[in-house]
Amino acid sequence: MKNINLSMLCDFYEFTMSNGYLKNGFYKKNVYFDMFFRSVPDNGGFAIAAGLQQVIEYIQNLHFDSKDIEFLRSKKLFDEKFLEYLKSFRFTGDIYAIPEGTPVFPNEPLMTVKAPAIEAQIIETFVLLALNHQSLIATKAHRIVRAAGGRAVLEFGSRRAQGVDGAVTGARAAYIGGCAGTACTLSDVMYAVPASGTMAHSWIQMFDSEYEAFRTYCELYPNNATLLLDTYNTLKSGVPNAIKAFNEVLLPKGIRNFAVRLDSGDIAYLSKETRRMFDEAGLHDCKIVASNSLDEYLIADLLMQGAKIDIFGVGERLITAKSDAAFGGVYKLVAVEDNCGNIVPKIKVSDNISKITNPHFKKLYRFFDRKSGKALADELCVYDETVGENSPHTIFDPDAVWKTKTLTDFIVKELQVPIFRNGVSVYAPPNLEQIKAYCAQQINLLWDEVKRFENPHTYYVDLSKNLWDIKQQLLRENQR
Amino acid sequence: MKNINLSMLCDFYEFTMSNGYLKNGFYKKNVYFDMFFRSVPDNGGFAIAAGLQQVIEYIQNLHFDSKDIEFLRSKKLFDEKFLEYLKSFRFTGDIYAIPEGTPVFPNEPLMTVKAPAIEAQIIETFVLLALNHQSLIATKAHRIVRAAGGRAVLEFGSRRAQGVDGAVTGARAAYIGGCAGTACTLSDVMYAVPASGTMAHSWIQMFDSEYEAFRTYCELYPNNATLLLDTYNTLKSGVPNAIKAFNEVLLPKGIRNFAVRLDSGDIAYLSKETRRMFDEAGLHDCKIVASNSLDEYLIADLLMQGAKIDIFGVGERLITAKSDAAFGGVYKLVAVEDNCGNIVPKIKVSDNISKITNPHFKKLYRFFDRKSGKALADELCVYDETVGENSPHTIFDPDAVWKTKTLTDFIVKELQVPIFRNGVSVYAPPNLEQIKAYCAQQINLLWDEVKRFENPHTYYVDLSKNLWDIKQQLLRENQR
Repeated sequence: MKNINLSMLCDFYEFTMSNGYLKNGFYKKNVYFDMFFRSVPDNGGFAIAAGLQQVIEYIQNLHFDSKDIEFLRSKKLFDEKFLEYLKSFRFTGDIYAIPEGTPVFPNEPLMTVKAPAIEAQIIETFVLLALNHQSLIATKAHRIVRAAGGRAVLEFGSRRAQGVDGAVTGARAAYIGGCAGTACTLSDVMYAVPASGTMAHSWIQMFDSEYEAFRTYCELYPNNATLLLDTYNTLKSGVPNAIKAFNEVLLPKGIRNFAVRLDSGDIAYLSKETRRMFDEAGLHDCKIVASNSLDEYLIADLLMQGAKIDIFGVGERLITAKSDAAFGGVYKLVAVEDNCGNIVPKIKVSDNISKITNPHFKKLYRFFDRKSGKALADELCVYDETVGENSPHTIFDPDAVWKTKTLTDFIVKELQVPIFRNGVSVYAPPNLEQIKAYCAQQINLLWDEVKRFENPHTYYVDLSKNLWDIKQQLLRENQR
Repeated sequence: MKNINLSMLCDFYEFTMSNGYLKNGFYKKNVYFDMFFRSVPDNGGFAIAAGLQQVIEYIQNLHFDSKDIEFLRSKKLFDEKFLEYLKSFRFTGDIYAIPEGTPVFPNEPLMTVKAPAIEAQIIETFVLLALNHQSLIATKAHRIVRAAGGRAVLEFGSRRAQGVDGAVTGARAAYIGGCAGTACTLSDVMYAVPASGTMAHSWIQMFDSEYEAFRTYCELYPNNATLLLDTYNTLKSGVPNAIKAFNEVLLPKGIRNFAVRLDSGDIAYLSKETRRMFDEAGLHDCKIVASNSLDEYLIADLLMQGAKIDIFGVGERLITAKSDAAFGGVYKLVAVEDNCGNIVPKIKVSDNISKITNPHFKKLYRFFDRKSGKALADELCVYDETVGENSPHTIFDPDAVWKTKTLTDFIVKELQVPIFRNGVSVYAPPNLEQIKAYCAQQINLLWDEVKRFENPHTYYVDLSKNLWDIKQQLLRENQR
């Protein structure tokens, strides 16, 4: 993955279409695309937006070098004029996006792109890839963190990740979603996700005895000793050897912040027995880490059984979001500018009703209750509409229009912020710690009913009357 | 992902353990690790080995530069002697592996590493990541290709892939597994996976009418026209407009190799109607491409319903292996050399019986029936055992030792081949087309019973008597 120009991480049809746009003069036409998703993975009540930072870096580096252009020329499909155009290609449009870490809901544009047709088209694949991947993992990570109920969750999954970036930016997204750290060193190097780790079974097998392996480790890392208990037999050998090593090496130094890790067997039972044995040995401070194909459901089940676990290490089921491994974000044309610069809304109808798009260049508002601070509803409006806080605001369900709700005493916030204007970055991105803190704080503003795993409440994402009318009109025109 | 040294794509505990190995003198000790998996994804009968090429490139580039070492120093955990050691760190060991494209079974070492302890440990994360990811996708791709029953399958999933590498090497693995091509341009640039593509809904929405969009595309790409039918209404508008565009633009030029794509709605019904309408218009040559969240089960179901589909475009469910999104490969210590250079077998027992390892430095044989050419069984032996073809060979089930089978008239083949010796590459890797062809040919040597989706036959992977005895002895020693 070294020295790779990600500008070529682009579905081939973006190039064939763009070649056509150039020929037809559409390349000057400003168009509007929304990136949005249609359903929350795992039937959850909300997702978490992530991946914006990688899109920003991609846009800033976007260009085609002579090798890329030579590659495209070799396909014998593209006009020389198009290949010439690509030489000086840069992104010159506007981008609006919902900041990373924000809880988001179906049909909300995580990103809106206003740009000349070719530019908006060329960036489609990468925009989708980056936002889909990291939103998927951040969303999954927060589910697991919620299940752990305040106990730390460490991301352990690099070895089962779907490729290099799956591991590295996956760990970044997991951190945004609430994980306390990662095993992935490169994610620490690149994104400052705190990496840590202690020992594998091989460390223990390398020594003549488990006790010798434990003792040596405690001597080496007196302040970071987490001993792995299950290489031979957790309760008969692992626990007694760990107690002995802690007693002989660490207690004399006054160190008590050690831990042990359970990685196989019946974790509920073993954790209770391990806890009892450590407590009987007076080692009440010893923390118990559990790993072994965990996810939010197993963690909730372990805790329901009274398992004595202080920290969870979660691998493949987090880093691949195994239970629902794709975030179905799409990137759809919502408007084009005519020759006079008027914004003409566009709709994609589709034979599946759920695939019908919300047309037009839009704004997205979130309403918060002024007293409790809780998020009440979101509303999609046409770009030139404004909502004030001084008068009551009535929203209605776009699928069941008789269902209305009048909001009073609210704070309203626009969710998308400007990221690029005329190709120039106008956004001061927060650092990863800020994103993580913002994420936790924003999720705290959601009602518990939206956050539960089973049949979560469907948060309101309504259309303004104006936008709803435009959509209905386009649908009727299409029907004719 | 530019200019990133993948040497740091390493679980942090590899460094903490390695620091200890150096301190304890283990770094000179040769150790043996096996990379193997315990179960086939999707309850399949076999997996496909892939990802070796990326491991080879990683090993060849493996080094720590001054920035990496500075990063590790900042953790205040590592001895200066270890950081100094990392400066000149190179891989100097031996690697054996099963070539890419080979069908493989649980408990078979896809890769065996013999190297000084630190070197073998440091490469663990990347070896697992690369082999797990690509074996997962190649295996999934072949399931989808099998379901398509000879029809071409195109990989379309970059936008839903788990990160950059998920898309790019994912498309490589999908091609090994039998896909005919990809939408991912970068995978063509890097690995020569043939990329192609035609149009998105946005192309059609950009024009004043669907017909104009179709006509323009046919004029632009007369030899590559695949028109997308479902932007407004597949049967009422998409099909008639496509027929008109083909009739007016392509038929006069004598071109008949055009196609249409269905991307939503009831694909079974729409494909039959579309076929009928094209046939009635005399356009019998028009191919029908179908996409929309397909996988092996949906494809098999569509074909069972008599859907008229010539080509399948498969996205997120292939590129993420969505139904079972992690390949559970592990990397386990199986032997160490003592001070006299004797190879001492090691076992990891675990509280889960399925997690007990096969100890020792091993060889893996595959037996083929001399008459039919079909694969009969595999056998794991100790490294210094040999199996000849001149006498009958009796194998037995390691879990049910009374179940024996005597093979006669067979050809036997060692599955692992040397990749590195003393850190030097000794392998001439086949190119991607060769790997793909080898994969198809080797899978052809499996019985159909191993290849079916539902309750596939469990292919025999047995232990030699010698290896079985050693394993039993280690288990008994552990029990004491």
